[in-house]
Amino acid sequence: TKTYNVVVLPGDGIGPEVTHEASRVLEFISSKSSDYEIKLTSQDFGGIAIDNAGVPLPEATLKACEAADAMLLGAVGGPKWGVGKVRPEQGLLQLRKHFDLYANVRPALFPSKSLLSHSPLKPEIAEGTSMIVVRELVKGLYFGDRVEADLDTPGSTGEASDMMVYNKNDVQRITRLAAALALQQTPTAKIHSIDKANVLACSRLWRRVVTETIENEFKGQVEVDHQLVDSAAMIMVSNPRKLNGIVLTENMFGDILSDESSVIPGSLGLLPSASLAGLPDGKSDCKGLYEPIHGTAPDIAGQGIANPIGTILSAAMLLRYSFGLGREADAIYKAVETVLDTPDLGGLGLRTADLGGKAKTGEVGDAVLKQL
Amino acid sequence: TKTYNVVVLPGDGIGPEVTHEASRVLEFISSKSSDYEIKLTSQDFGGIAIDNAGVPLPEATLKACEAADAMLLGAVGGPKWGVGKVRPEQGLLQLRKHFDLYANVRPALFPSKSLLSHSPLKPEIAEGTSMIVVRELVKGLYFGDRVEADLDTPGSTGEASDMMVYNKNDVQRITRLAAALALQQTPTAKIHSIDKANVLACSRLWRRVVTETIENEFKGQVEVDHQLVDSAAMIMVSNPRKLNGIVLTENMFGDILSDESSVIPGSLGLLPSASLAGLPDGKSDCKGLYEPIHGTAPDIAGQGIANPIGTILSAAMLLRYSFGLGREADAIYKAVETVLDTPDLGGLGLRTADLGGKAKTGEVGDAVLKQL
Ligand SMILES: CC(C)[C@H](C(=O)O)[C@@H](O)C(=O)O
Ligand SMILES: CC(C)[C@H](C(=O)O)[C@@H](O)C(=O)O
Repeated sequence: TKTYNVVVLPGDGIGPEVTHEASRVLEFISSKSSDYEIKLTSQDFGGIAIDNAGVPLPEATLKACEAADAMLLGAVGGPKWGVGKVRPEQGLLQLRKHFDLYANVRPALFPSKSLLSHSPLKPEIAEGTSMIVVRELVKGLYFGDRVEADLDTPGSTGEASDMMVYNKNDVQRITRLAAALALQQTPTAKIHSIDKANVLACSRLWRRVVTETIENEFKGQVEVDHQLVDSAAMIMVSNPRKLNGIVLTENMFGDILSDESSVIPGSLGLLPSASLAGLPDGKSDCKGLYEPIHGTAPDIAGQGIANPIGTILSAAMLLRYSFGLGREADAIYKAVETVLDTPDLGGLGLRTADLGGKAKTGEVGDAVLKQL
Repeated sequence: TKTYNVVVLPGDGIGPEVTHEASRVLEFISSKSSDYEIKLTSQDFGGIAIDNAGVPLPEATLKACEAADAMLLGAVGGPKWGVGKVRPEQGLLQLRKHFDLYANVRPALFPSKSLLSHSPLKPEIAEGTSMIVVRELVKGLYFGDRVEADLDTPGSTGEASDMMVYNKNDVQRITRLAAALALQQTPTAKIHSIDKANVLACSRLWRRVVTETIENEFKGQVEVDHQLVDSAAMIMVSNPRKLNGIVLTENMFGDILSDESSVIPGSLGLLPSASLAGLPDGKSDCKGLYEPIHGTAPDIAGQGIANPIGTILSAAMLLRYSFGLGREADAIYKAVETVLDTPDLGGLGLRTADLGGKAKTGEVGDAVLKQL
């Protein structure tokens, strides 16, 4: 039997509650197989690590992550650590850089059609939206040189700067990853590459390298078109189906567009994400960090009412991308859909408060396990 | 009598059609006053200037703009000039820089309540949305040093970079402008400042200087809160009323967020914009470039069916901000609302095709003039 090691990073706020349910799902999947075993260990990360060790990513956590095949994260941050010099999200940026997690994969789609009414968009606009945002995650404005403004020396102009940097290789590898995801869909998804080529040098590089990579390596297999980021931000709201397929973009634009896209399905609590260091084709070595897209929700933490589905679906992505266990991932998606749609006493599916239901975090976890 | 000089830059596509109607409105306003006269002259700009003079902003046009008090633009660009080295939008960036048009003001609100059904958002989400995006327009990634990638020399890494730069003065002046706009509303609008202070040095500068400027100069008069750009991109769709008031942000974020906000009211054809070089308080010297937010719409150009309202409302902004003629601006807004809501034969207001109506560009212009 093969052993897969997963480090669980529960983090802060509702993080421990939602990772608990996703861990149960992974343990259950492991228990049903004689081909592999999934071993889970848990480590401090984020605010709790600042409290216990003074830094958001302690040495012990980093070592455990290095030894692991994949990482499952809850969420980090909260008002308690919001303003200090040492902040939880620095740990996240460190993890991304350290493991070269160059691709953030964020599906924005309805895990169940019955959720359409939760979208802020009109049903006829939202219906059938199904995009996966692929965001470059370790370059661009996030990791270029920066100069902090000096606002305290009299006479200083107080100038600050941040540098956006990309090279050919950066754009090639994320394009290949987007193409691999496109090819996994039936029919093959179209790639919509988003940039600001009418202004930025990085975007002109981006557009040319995306075009050439598809042309040279995926000709006749994967189609690509190009849109300006301002226009894409409009289309995403006015006609999101136009962006169905893969939305491929650089780090800063991806931060904005992936969040914008995620409100379409109507509950942030449902959506998973993956940050990958390799091709998610089930064949390559693909270390990844998996997490729901929601935050730590300090206002409801500890009450057992958080929606665990985003984290459970993140665990499904982990199985598919890092371990090549696509069948198991599909089973989890199917179980989640059934749970969301099985009427409970109120006539709704078994749903947590964010979806207008009354179910507890643990009840949703139980129900998913039962379906599996 | 005072003379106000306006340069009209019709531009490309539907630009000439829509500026024609707005010019008629300005001429009419001028004819009714004995205190001032508005003189209009027209100049080539954009694609047509490339065709006629080889550059998007010819010397003669620039000279006329220098001599004028304000500029009214239609729209520039089109497939014909889309890919060349010399492109229409370069003229726009040159104008912004040359006249130091540091503030782009973009209202996203319903010029008539009856338009609610045109929003892609559910009526209960869109209703009551009323924000003005104030975007810094001459700094940041748009005008920092950049390095184009060398993709043709064998062995080159093909690295590109763009620099985001802001200093204290840049942030102070745009904050003052946002505060001036906030104070013009009744009750005083709240400012929502948008940045990415958890990552960018420019955003940390931004946040601190916005806070201090309001604290030092507008304490007790104007309130400000701060949001991260990714979160703002979500809220704008899921709960846009939360951003009601002034949305204040830097150049690149503003490009994205102002476009995102503009789909809420349901027709791009209705929305005006102003790019200003001074405080729009009706007292300061405030040169400005005014234009509808829509593009050149080459597919319907020349058919006389474009919606002129965005340009007519841009002319209203011109009167208010550059000439201090607030009463005249209000009258135009009122006339537009009446025209949109006066039932025509189909039971709708007098509306162009983009709003589901049958009215011609000129008919809408006529109707606005009649109301005035
Ligand atoms: C916490 C923050 C630094 C991070 C980012 O901007 O990348 C977050 O918004 C995300 O998208 O994962
Ligand atoms: C044409 C382009 C350079 C311009 C910009 O990005 O500023 C446009 O999108 C705008 O918002 O006026």
